[in-house]
Amino acid sequence: MNLKRYLPIFQWAPQYGRGEATSDLVAAVIVTVMLIPQSLAYALLAGLPAHVGLYASILPLMIYAVFGTSRTLSVGPVAVASLMTAAALAPLAESGTPEYIAGAVLLAVMSGLMLTLMGILRLGFLANFLSHPVISGFITASGIVIAASQLKHIFGIEASGHNLLSIGQSLILSLGETNLATLAVGAGALLFLVLARKRLKPLLMATGMAPRTADIMTKTAPILAVLVTTLLAWQFQLDAQGVRLVGDVPRGLPDFTMPSLDVELWQQLAVSALLISVVGFVESVSVGQTLAAKRRQRIDPDQELIGLGTANLGAGFSGGMPVTGGFSRSVVNFDAGAETPAAGAYAAVGIALATLFLTPAIAYLPQATLAATIIVAVTTLIDLPALGRTWRYSRPDFGAMLATIVLTLVHSVEAGIVAGVALSIGLFLYRTSRPHCAVIGRVPGTEHFRNILRHEVELCPKVTFLRVDESLYFANARFLEETVMDLVTRQPELQDLVLVCTAVNLVDASALESLEAINERLTDAGVRLHLSDVKGPVMDRLGDTELLANLGGQVFLSAYKAWQTLTRPCALAARRSESEYPNDGDDREPALWQPVDHYRADIPGDTG
Amino acid sequence: MNLKRYLPIFQWAPQYGRGEATSDLVAAVIVTVMLIPQSLAYALLAGLPAHVGLYASILPLMIYAVFGTSRTLSVGPVAVASLMTAAALAPLAESGTPEYIAGAVLLAVMSGLMLTLMGILRLGFLANFLSHPVISGFITASGIVIAASQLKHIFGIEASGHNLLSIGQSLILSLGETNLATLAVGAGALLFLVLARKRLKPLLMATGMAPRTADIMTKTAPILAVLVTTLLAWQFQLDAQGVRLVGDVPRGLPDFTMPSLDVELWQQLAVSALLISVVGFVESVSVGQTLAAKRRQRIDPDQELIGLGTANLGAGFSGGMPVTGGFSRSVVNFDAGAETPAAGAYAAVGIALATLFLTPAIAYLPQATLAATIIVAVTTLIDLPALGRTWRYSRPDFGAMLATIVLTLVHSVEAGIVAGVALSIGLFLYRTSRPHCAVIGRVPGTEHFRNILRHEVELCPKVTFLRVDESLYFANARFLEETVMDLVTRQPELQDLVLVCTAVNLVDASALESLEAINERLTDAGVRLHLSDVKGPVMDRLGDTELLANLGGQVFLSAYKAWQTLTRPCALAARRSESEYPNDGDDREPALWQPVDHYRADIPGDTG
Repeated sequence: MNLKRYLPIFQWAPQYGRGEATSDLVAAVIVTVMLIPQSLAYALLAGLPAHVGLYASILPLMIYAVFGTSRTLSVGPVAVASLMTAAALAPLAESGTPEYIAGAVLLAVMSGLMLTLMGILRLGFLANFLSHPVISGFITASGIVIAASQLKHIFGIEASGHNLLSIGQSLILSLGETNLATLAVGAGALLFLVLARKRLKPLLMATGMAPRTADIMTKTAPILAVLVTTLLAWQFQLDAQGVRLVGDVPRGLPDFTMPSLDVELWQQLAVSALLISVVGFVESVSVGQTLAAKRRQRIDPDQELIGLGTANLGAGFSGGMPVTGGFSRSVVNFDAGAETPAAGAYAAVGIALATLFLTPAIAYLPQATLAATIIVAVTTLIDLPALGRTWRYSRPDFGAMLATIVLTLVHSVEAGIVAGVALSIGLFLYRTSRPHCAVIGRVPGTEHFRNILRHEVELCPKVTFLRVDESLYFANARFLEETVMDLVTRQPELQDLVLVCTAVNLVDASALESLEAINERLTDAGVRLHLSDVKGPVMDRLGDTELLANLGGQVFLSAYKAWQTLTRPCALAARRSESEYPNDGDDREPALWQPVDHYRADIPGDTG
Repeated sequence: MNLKRYLPIFQWAPQYGRGEATSDLVAAVIVTVMLIPQSLAYALLAGLPAHVGLYASILPLMIYAVFGTSRTLSVGPVAVASLMTAAALAPLAESGTPEYIAGAVLLAVMSGLMLTLMGILRLGFLANFLSHPVISGFITASGIVIAASQLKHIFGIEASGHNLLSIGQSLILSLGETNLATLAVGAGALLFLVLARKRLKPLLMATGMAPRTADIMTKTAPILAVLVTTLLAWQFQLDAQGVRLVGDVPRGLPDFTMPSLDVELWQQLAVSALLISVVGFVESVSVGQTLAAKRRQRIDPDQELIGLGTANLGAGFSGGMPVTGGFSRSVVNFDAGAETPAAGAYAAVGIALATLFLTPAIAYLPQATLAATIIVAVTTLIDLPALGRTWRYSRPDFGAMLATIVLTLVHSVEAGIVAGVALSIGLFLYRTSRPHCAVIGRVPGTEHFRNILRHEVELCPKVTFLRVDESLYFANARFLEETVMDLVTRQPELQDLVLVCTAVNLVDASALESLEAINERLTDAGVRLHLSDVKGPVMDRLGDTELLANLGGQVFLSAYKAWQTLTRPCALAARRSESEYPNDGDDREPALWQPVDHYRADIPGDTG
């Protein structure tokens, strides 16, 4: 059992047959064709030599096939992680230098260690700190920054920067030095890819091709752009015209690479590695879950951490760069019919073969073509309408999203994501720090209680029922104290306060102390505090506390039971005349007062 | 109205009469006697010349009388804020130097600006981030550090450090240089104060004194220790024996002090000033609320921010140090019968008179006496049993508390409080990230639904009812996705899933997207997603979303209505034979399927 959990390959390998092998091989061929330009492009985006992208698409895929739980996820270099890699390494070394490459290797290794460790310790929940609006805003902003950063390759100019402001500024300054041959190749490839994305599928379907096949063919358009522009560059010696080519790439498979053991470097890259890990993990899991659900399969997020972590270790030790599960490549893999992670391993073999035999051709590939592929790929990441949707649904979420986008665009990817996380946590605490509270009264003749501000209900001036629609914890403990004391100050005739806990799923130590303080203060003020509708798990924990030992009042099973016990004279008055609730003086005191130590009899053993 | 809100003095001053004046004057005399040694001592603790403590007890009290909302809170230098001041200034300058004093002034001004601004912007909720266990652990650990830091004065040796490790180490190293005369004074004062605290009250009551008077007399023991040791020091010229005295103190009232405008210094002190502000505010508000409640008064926390902020501005501009509402001094003020903040203003006059006329005598006050007062005062802050109580009630809260204590003791006050806040937020998110979930079934013959693992209930294999006992938000959105997909994968016959939302107080944008993803994945897997018991405010927000537009199933008013609609064939089967629930095939499909666009009819307009 445990073997199968930690080595998910044993879940599918024993039943692996000819049918699966055929499906996987077909998918692998299609994915390989798609991966070659993508891997080269994302290495370029990360500021690395193009072949590093190929290296990162061999060993990681094989390792993921052993440790990953998704049947169809395809791991490798992806756009956002590549941008984050570039941003992390920019302060350390000049792009493309040996120190820079060593930094990328170290990022992959550190990210691999972090993810694997998080998986072993089952810390997948840490990814929960990234709310959807923050992730969505972050990916949108990254897409914009990535697209902007590639424009220099399209124009054949020098430009730098890792946010929209600095990139834009340096683009504008050097726009005069545009290389027309490069622009022709880049703009041509861009136009072709945009048209292919929009028009190719209907065109192919018009020729009688099946929709799924047409879809897959459309996704291989980048390899066509690569082939054509490489041939052009070779035929017309475009490098002499100032068109930048990928250039000589080391031939052969990657060697074992030892990561740097420089402690200072590890410290400098720690935060970046953590952010790359968490963002990559969230992206992978959401892609993996979406695809798994389509076939009623499921993935195990904690084991996914191990799968991604070991894949990253593989990437690092084979001279690659940080990898994660990519959206578009996984969808292509799924649509092409991959049935097991073996498809990924076969694709790895395909990339390895390309590395062995195609590298001389790759030398002639124009960088502008790769930039065009990146730009077209990342436009699918940009989802600005999400801002509007989020605004309409929830202002706090919109705030977190906007902060993430703005900071990513104008400052840096890391500032964007950290601000987004901090803001979404802060705003959540703020939202729950002033929960909806209602003084409730009895709907005449029923056991139901409703907000006195919205409904015609019966009241008793000596007894107030207060319902708090939130778990009680540190963020709203003081609010509760204020609300209750406010109520008591405004009602001098008050003798009993019933806290109705229907919506309280948790009472933490802060809230417990606040309840104790409330109880003490109410007792000082001559008011008894009662609780009603306390849920089973909450009551279990309150059982042994000072609160219940010293509670001025009782714990009631329901608000109605509290009503019956506490408001007997009032209720009689209400029956006599529905419109007035006379103050009955203190004569009911003895009848109502009961010792608290038998509260347990009132508590449901279990409300689950 | 607004005038009264921002200048609470107008709430009580118009009715101020001879009775209130008499009560306030009596209280002021007692508080003044108590404040003189306390102010001197806390200045010493903060590493400042003793008279700075007196300065901080004049203008702030007068200002608080105008802007504060608590009738009996007494502001001035307190132990924890003094320790935090010392910790903040230690890296900047040598204790007691002009730069150091300027730093304390700046801390008071910055803290004053921050608190006032927070009050105007109504940001009092920020204090909620400090959970009770963190505050309690922090105050306990601070008390220990403070007591340890004063031992050097008792032994008459040199020692330094701002955490237990460094203080302990330097104490042990210089213990050999103990000054016996100092030790005699210090240990004598300590013994006297401890005995006074424990024995004086019963002794006085035995002489026929009223308990309250005896209590107040006991609290003035420090002034007695001060008087006696000052006389001894003067009589026997103890400074010649190596006993450190307070020394010459500038005579006269404080001058107007201009805070430093050095931007770098402001940046260095910003975090410390914020922490001092927030901790001081939390302490003040909890003291203020406790005292106010005893007389059915209330305080306004946002206005308290302004009261404390302006008091700190007053402290800073008159050459003082950060101030806040102290526990022991406020209790003495309250017990002595203070009725309005005028008592504080009168006490300020008392301190001003002392500053004018008593300073020559103060020069002979041994520092060891002040150290003894501090040690005895802070022992009341140390609450180690709280660790046990918190452990028993809640492990996550215990974890946050322990981390705060340990880090405060072994590292620094700032590390302690920051770690505590981060941990309590993290642990809260963790707790709510894996909420209690239950698959529920119908209690036979009723409209009630209960956990199938704990109760004998009716089930239908094609319809699952899942209840989630928590608000749905980013921390548990992915958990929900996993839980639901896990359920569906394990039940191949499942056709309908009802999410029962009785405990859901909030659905944020992340949870909304997760619900949309769940709905999509379930639709792909041939399962319809239904919602039931959605609360009014939650439903209001879901109204216009894609989720409801695309929902595979319906929104039901209650789980019972869903049961009636979805399980009709099953329920019939159950009536025929309670023990078996045959699979009825697909024949009920048409009867159950209803368009979703009329869901609104099913929704209660208002559940409040």
